[in-house]
Amino acid sequence: MFLDTFKPKQFTLTAPSPLLWRVAFSNPPVNVIGPSMISDLKELLTELETNQTVNTVIFESLDPDFFLAHYDLAADPAEAEALPSPTGYAAWVDVLVRLSHVSAVTISAIRGIARGAGSEFVLATDMRFASLEKAILGQMEVGFTALPGGGAAGRLPALVGRGRAFEILLGGEDFSAELAERYGYINRAVPDSDFERFVTAYATRVSKWDRRVIRDIKHYINKYTLLPDSEYPLHSDAFWGAAARPEFQSINSQLFEHGLQTRSDIEYNLGRDVGTIFPKL
Amino acid sequence: MFLDTFKPKQFTLTAPSPLLWRVAFSNPPVNVIGPSMISDLKELLTELETNQTVNTVIFESLDPDFFLAHYDLAADPAEAEALPSPTGYAAWVDVLVRLSHVSAVTISAIRGIARGAGSEFVLATDMRFASLEKAILGQMEVGFTALPGGGAAGRLPALVGRGRAFEILLGGEDFSAELAERYGYINRAVPDSDFERFVTAYATRVSKWDRRVIRDIKHYINKYTLLPDSEYPLHSDAFWGAAARPEFQSINSQLFEHGLQTRSDIEYNLGRDVGTIFPKL
Amino acid sequence: MFLDTFKPKQFTLTAPSPLLWRVAFSNPPVNVIGPSMISDLKELLTELETNQTVNTVIFESLDPDFFLAHYDLAADPAEAEALPSPTGYAAWVDVLVRLSHVSAVTISAIRGIARGAGSEFVLATDMRFASLEKAILGQMEVGFTALPGGGAAGRLPALVGRGRAFEILLGGEDFSAELAERYGYINRAVPDSDFERFVTAYATRVSKWDRRVIRDIKHYINKYTLLPDSEYPLHSDAFWGAAARPEFQSINSQLFEHGLQTRSDIEYNLGRDVGTIFPKL
Repeated sequence: MFLDTFKPKQFTLTAPSPLLWRVAFSNPPVNVIGPSMISDLKELLTELETNQTVNTVIFESLDPDFFLAHYDLAADPAEAEALPSPTGYAAWVDVLVRLSHVSAVTISAIRGIARGAGSEFVLATDMRFASLEKAILGQMEVGFTALPGGGAAGRLPALVGRGRAFEILLGGEDFSAELAERYGYINRAVPDSDFERFVTAYATRVSKWDRRVIRDIKHYINKYTLLPDSEYPLHSDAFWGAAARPEFQSINSQLFEHGLQTRSDIEYNLGRDVGTIFPKL
Repeated sequence: MFLDTFKPKQFTLTAPSPLLWRVAFSNPPVNVIGPSMISDLKELLTELETNQTVNTVIFESLDPDFFLAHYDLAADPAEAEALPSPTGYAAWVDVLVRLSHVSAVTISAIRGIARGAGSEFVLATDMRFASLEKAILGQMEVGFTALPGGGAAGRLPALVGRGRAFEILLGGEDFSAELAERYGYINRAVPDSDFERFVTAYATRVSKWDRRVIRDIKHYINKYTLLPDSEYPLHSDAFWGAAARPEFQSINSQLFEHGLQTRSDIEYNLGRDVGTIFPKL
Repeated sequence: MFLDTFKPKQFTLTAPSPLLWRVAFSNPPVNVIGPSMISDLKELLTELETNQTVNTVIFESLDPDFFLAHYDLAADPAEAEALPSPTGYAAWVDVLVRLSHVSAVTISAIRGIARGAGSEFVLATDMRFASLEKAILGQMEVGFTALPGGGAAGRLPALVGRGRAFEILLGGEDFSAELAERYGYINRAVPDSDFERFVTAYATRVSKWDRRVIRDIKHYINKYTLLPDSEYPLHSDAFWGAAARPEFQSINSQLFEHGLQTRSDIEYNLGRDVGTIFPKL
């Protein structure tokens, strides 16, 4: 069966029960989202789109400091784009649009940093719980001169309202779990000492409900809150358009010189530093 | 006049002034919503739809522990469905859709438990204030294998956002007033010692405004935030479809054996226990 | 250039950098919004609609007690309406609709009272920061028998949700910065001792980003959260319709007898007193 044959390279998949799966990201040193992880996620989604048993999937990280750092900015984008795309959309859009439509309940359990595409991943799951002390969220793409390519500008307003969506995307700063909860960016910040218990208890409870009622609840809330899928390729095109410009490439190069995609100060403080290292004036 | 001739069986109706009415639910032992209360509510709504004087209606409970426990699961559904339905919708949908359209301002003053259809009732009023210490809200229908039939999945996202709407409906758990306020499920949690004064002061103030401006404010906010009424029969059909299945009936029977619809532990802790008494595994 | 030739009468305009402008309202004694301020704002907007350099505009007040008190109720409305209106809408609607469409990021830095049209102004900017101790917001128009004419009923639901929008507009009461933050009426309440530093740091950071990404972010969030502009003339017509009625004029006269538009108790406490001085019963 799938659980026996699926060998993801950049996350572990465990099944505490046939009804509840746990995906734990593991792509050292900082859990960037590159072609290999995207390939793993696409394979997982293909299974979730037909699996009639699993009701709940938790997404978490084996790295306590990094949930998902951001898109892999060192990889050749053509690699991810060469993977099959059932929606016909760009690789990251294909993953997130399909994620938002699976029949299982998807829960992000955020410890560590979820920035850029990592933040977009959690925004595309059904709900987000975060460690009060250890979670950091942010969309720092503005500092790279690019609209977030995975649709943060489409998903944030339905969670945090118009004014706070502007603040998050235009500021590009890091948000603590406490502030993210006040804004609605996450459902709830839970003290780290209770976090694992809380998430497991909630997810286990949900996993045992009747499959049909889960499908009904997801159907109606999706009906009233999801944008048309066709919006998301527009964001992706804007991102890749910006990424092709010399300004983006210059910022990117400079950040790699400072240690981007290693366990460096720049990765820990990217929300702050993207605005202080490269001022326009 | 109406106030002299209307003799509701399951709530009291008082008029501190011609501009302000108070409806206080009273259907011992736990204030379930059955055919008689629905009949009373329909009669009240018919009056509110033509009354040109009353500006504000407070909904509260004479029972400090139970605002409205949930739909009456012991009654024959045919009784409520046999009542007149001006909208043509199922009984509970007819009540809630009409409630959301009356010209008077409707205020829920929640002390005690408002679960299931009781929570849906307060969601269909214009605003919700709750006792910080004594109010509990929840939609535990998921534990009965059923989508909430009165439209919680339609009304919650406009209040709490997509992620928290999923959490509330998929978890089926109880929410304290404090957490309900943080999520936007209620407007505000007010310390119980000040609750009665707060609600009366607010409602009295609103009741004295010009009738035309109240109508205008309600018109425009409704225009921008209400779903089409035609969504709600879909939820009701999903609920009654589930209620006809053996799983629902089995859960229901077991809950009645544990004391459902009496002043029992199961009624006090239904949000928790619906998930622990009947696990699928 | 514009900065050299523009001589606004009721605010100061400074440019800490070509990328960041600060508008500080100054129309003693309480910063009402009258024909002269509207004229200044229209001229500023005309510049912002073509200026290709400035990225961020902060709106603040030179008066620590009054951000913008409300519309000027002593002026002849014909004066403002005689000004050019590129949208063709009434004067205040023209200002706010254009404000919500400029390409620069607009930030309200609220110290003191922002009521009525003053609150509507901040609602039409992209985001709102407020001094925790010194800011007060409210829409007290209901107490004048009028729907807010600048579209508060259109902009509040996207920020605070349906239930809280009703409470704010139907109650007409003052909101502290702390409560306004809990409701989402403002982005964040910041302790006054840190307020100036916080706002300047955020606005400066944003001002330095690439102009194209700011335009993209604003484009998509506007696409998903703005109502059609054509809604707003409806609110304005409702306001002016009410303002022509004897009830409005009587309330207005009585308030001026109590010191409206002077540094009087009535201006400091208008949210409270509009409901206690003129009870209907």
